[in-house]
Amino acid sequence: MKKFIAEFIGTLWLVLGGCGSAVLAAGFPEMGIGFVGVSLAFGLTVVTMAYGIGHISGCHLNPAVSIGLWVGGRFDGKDLFPYIIAQCMGAIAGAAILFLIASGKSDFVLGNFAANGYGEHSPGGYSMTSAFFIEAAMTFIFLFVILGSTYTKAPRGFAGLAIGLCLTLIHLISIPVTNTSVNPARSTSQALFVNDWALGQLWLFWLAPIIGAILAGIVYKIISPETTD
Amino acid sequence: MKKFIAEFIGTLWLVLGGCGSAVLAAGFPEMGIGFVGVSLAFGLTVVTMAYGIGHISGCHLNPAVSIGLWVGGRFDGKDLFPYIIAQCMGAIAGAAILFLIASGKSDFVLGNFAANGYGEHSPGGYSMTSAFFIEAAMTFIFLFVILGSTYTKAPRGFAGLAIGLCLTLIHLISIPVTNTSVNPARSTSQALFVNDWALGQLWLFWLAPIIGAILAGIVYKIISPETTD
Amino acid sequence: MKKFIAEFIGTLWLVLGGCGSAVLAAGFPEMGIGFVGVSLAFGLTVVTMAYGIGHISGCHLNPAVSIGLWVGGRFDGKDLFPYIIAQCMGAIAGAAILFLIASGKSDFVLGNFAANGYGEHSPGGYSMTSAFFIEAAMTFIFLFVILGSTYTKAPRGFAGLAIGLCLTLIHLISIPVTNTSVNPARSTSQALFVNDWALGQLWLFWLAPIIGAILAGIVYKIISPETTD
Amino acid sequence: MKKFIAEFIGTLWLVLGGCGSAVLAAGFPEMGIGFVGVSLAFGLTVVTMAYGIGHISGCHLNPAVSIGLWVGGRFDGKDLFPYIIAQCMGAIAGAAILFLIASGKSDFVLGNFAANGYGEHSPGGYSMTSAFFIEAAMTFIFLFVILGSTYTKAPRGFAGLAIGLCLTLIHLISIPVTNTSVNPARSTSQALFVNDWALGQLWLFWLAPIIGAILAGIVYKIISPETTD
Repeated sequence: MKKFIAEFIGTLWLVLGGCGSAVLAAGFPEMGIGFVGVSLAFGLTVVTMAYGIGHISGCHLNPAVSIGLWVGGRFDGKDLFPYIIAQCMGAIAGAAILFLIASGKSDFVLGNFAANGYGEHSPGGYSMTSAFFIEAAMTFIFLFVILGSTYTKAPRGFAGLAIGLCLTLIHLISIPVTNTSVNPARSTSQALFVNDWALGQLWLFWLAPIIGAILAGIVYKIISPETTD
Repeated sequence: MKKFIAEFIGTLWLVLGGCGSAVLAAGFPEMGIGFVGVSLAFGLTVVTMAYGIGHISGCHLNPAVSIGLWVGGRFDGKDLFPYIIAQCMGAIAGAAILFLIASGKSDFVLGNFAANGYGEHSPGGYSMTSAFFIEAAMTFIFLFVILGSTYTKAPRGFAGLAIGLCLTLIHLISIPVTNTSVNPARSTSQALFVNDWALGQLWLFWLAPIIGAILAGIVYKIISPETTD
Repeated sequence: MKKFIAEFIGTLWLVLGGCGSAVLAAGFPEMGIGFVGVSLAFGLTVVTMAYGIGHISGCHLNPAVSIGLWVGGRFDGKDLFPYIIAQCMGAIAGAAILFLIASGKSDFVLGNFAANGYGEHSPGGYSMTSAFFIEAAMTFIFLFVILGSTYTKAPRGFAGLAIGLCLTLIHLISIPVTNTSVNPARSTSQALFVNDWALGQLWLFWLAPIIGAILAGIVYKIISPETTD
Repeated sequence: MKKFIAEFIGTLWLVLGGCGSAVLAAGFPEMGIGFVGVSLAFGLTVVTMAYGIGHISGCHLNPAVSIGLWVGGRFDGKDLFPYIIAQCMGAIAGAAILFLIASGKSDFVLGNFAANGYGEHSPGGYSMTSAFFIEAAMTFIFLFVILGSTYTKAPRGFAGLAIGLCLTLIHLISIPVTNTSVNPARSTSQALFVNDWALGQLWLFWLAPIIGAILAGIVYKIISPETTD
């Protein structure tokens, strides 16, 4: 039970912190944090929770991560569904708190919240194909780094930094294409508030990250040092 | 006595460094550091002091942190008031040095210094309710990360990075709402120089962070691995 | 075989992540990540892969690094050519994926992609001599830091951070001069897509980094603590 | 002899990297790195060299640091002058390389290079008094963090990060006041190229940092845990 609470709070933080920085601070006149600040914020939600709850739940905070770790043989399949449910509930709770705070402004407009999108809803106008490839590729590398940095031969303790900063890096590259998901729970939490188009495009932000994660689980198994050469 | 001096110097640095970056460098024409730079500065005051004085006083630098650690069973209640007094005195000393330096400019205007505020004194015009919720929520997570990353099972040595970068993240999200406090000593030090409105709104920046900290102390006890499941 | 696959994937990530952030996100209107974001992105590709594959292949991701480590006596000469080939192939694969994603935009223009250049193709209009010196000097220091931070007496585990952040620093300095290479595989991957001028200037981005790397290998041997004073 | 070469190369890097980022990249149109990027660059010169040469020379790179460590009882007085000479020579060599590279541009103007100044030469127009106080205060904290994070009870290996990031933080605060020195060797290297006003103001950038460093050496001795309470 404790680990599900930990995943719930951790994913709540990922959405409140990451999407919150985008909604509240990215476009503030003159002083706004821009995509660099949003990228840093998303990554730091993972860095902070990795050291805060890593020893409780492993700090996945992301259904694609749980699936990739399961495929890679690092996570017990019987916890897979409870983890995904805790993550989605935490993400929605984070989005609700963010909505509550953001709406306490006289000129508040929901707009696209921090929803992910492609085509006309891509920040830079990228096609569905580009969106699919970048989400799959980014999640592939994300899982590859997670699997590698938590491997027994990797330096102890640094995985939380490497993984969180990988999420920062992923955002530095891909916000213009899809507003960056690599995390179906994060995408779902925003789409529920935006409705219409965002729910219609949500399938891609489940499918592409999960495909990338599964591929990474398979590839890392092949090149991980324990397998005979 | 040594630990009170350490808390005094550490909190002085938090205010001189964090608020100093906001007052001196955030809005510099063309090259200014903006909210990203201020967020980084606040977080790095904690990172630097965590490694500098963590082994002397635990590096709280914040009355809400001391209270949350006490509720969470990590800090001896008999040191609580001396710590809070040392922190407030250090914060005021930091604000005084900052005032001295900042005023050495021919066109100096105190303005709002780096005071925290809500309503018409919120940087982005957010309501008192939004301010209260975000300050409580951010301090909740801050203490949650502090309690988790200093737990015996967390990787040794990384807590200073995780906690300092958590403060960076908190600023990336919440500067537009309240100018970010999560620290009653920091808020008090600025309000004393600004007077009028800032002293009138100061209650929120004691109450909300302390409520968030107490809740985190309680919740972390429930999910920390030492409790039986 | 595993280590060549690791170098291939790692260098793919260096190009997809580093050059990708430059092509997709650096100049995004209002929110763009600028040179700071691109610098961070390049460095984080190395940080993430250092912890992800460092224990498999050593995480060179760069022909100049492999050569410098070989001169410094840290890398077996028999793996030198296979490593360089895996790096170049990975870099080209990364550029191809980036091209695929970036071109999925109605108003896509290849332009200079993220190619390196001097003279009229230097971002800031710097001469060939400046370009040569800065590429050689930056690669010299890069290898010097790599050799020093992976030395047995250096703190365990931190080399990945030090080396990755060194690449961030190198970009913070030198993007205006050459768009920053210090990595012949990265330069080659971009030049192949840009053709004409970029292929014509490519020689400098092989020669200068390799000279810098060889010098560092020699100098570090002289001052490394194992040599008698 | 090796440690003097290490200090020479390390301080060369501090000036080439830190001042280099300011001269070459800070004000680049649209994409420039601004004060945030320069702050990061200065700090990362120390992070990278701390892990690269810390085990050879201790990585001071700064006469004020060597003096503060000597006062604090951590550095042998007989090496004090050779260290300061190696640091100044390295800084000047770094400035010379930077000048060589920067001048390879058709519209090159030396201007103020990256010199430190006060009064009319302060970037933000701050008085000599403000300049003196901020340089002394920043160097005081810098040495305090150095002494604390390298103390035997501090977590092993993290000092390089804490100290380098402290220099980043110091720049985030104080570039608008003095262009940030806290390092007499760095200031000297720039003043020699700028001549006239910069040499005339150079005394402050030796005196204030050294006073701050000496005070820190004294204060840290008083509160360091080895002294009886």
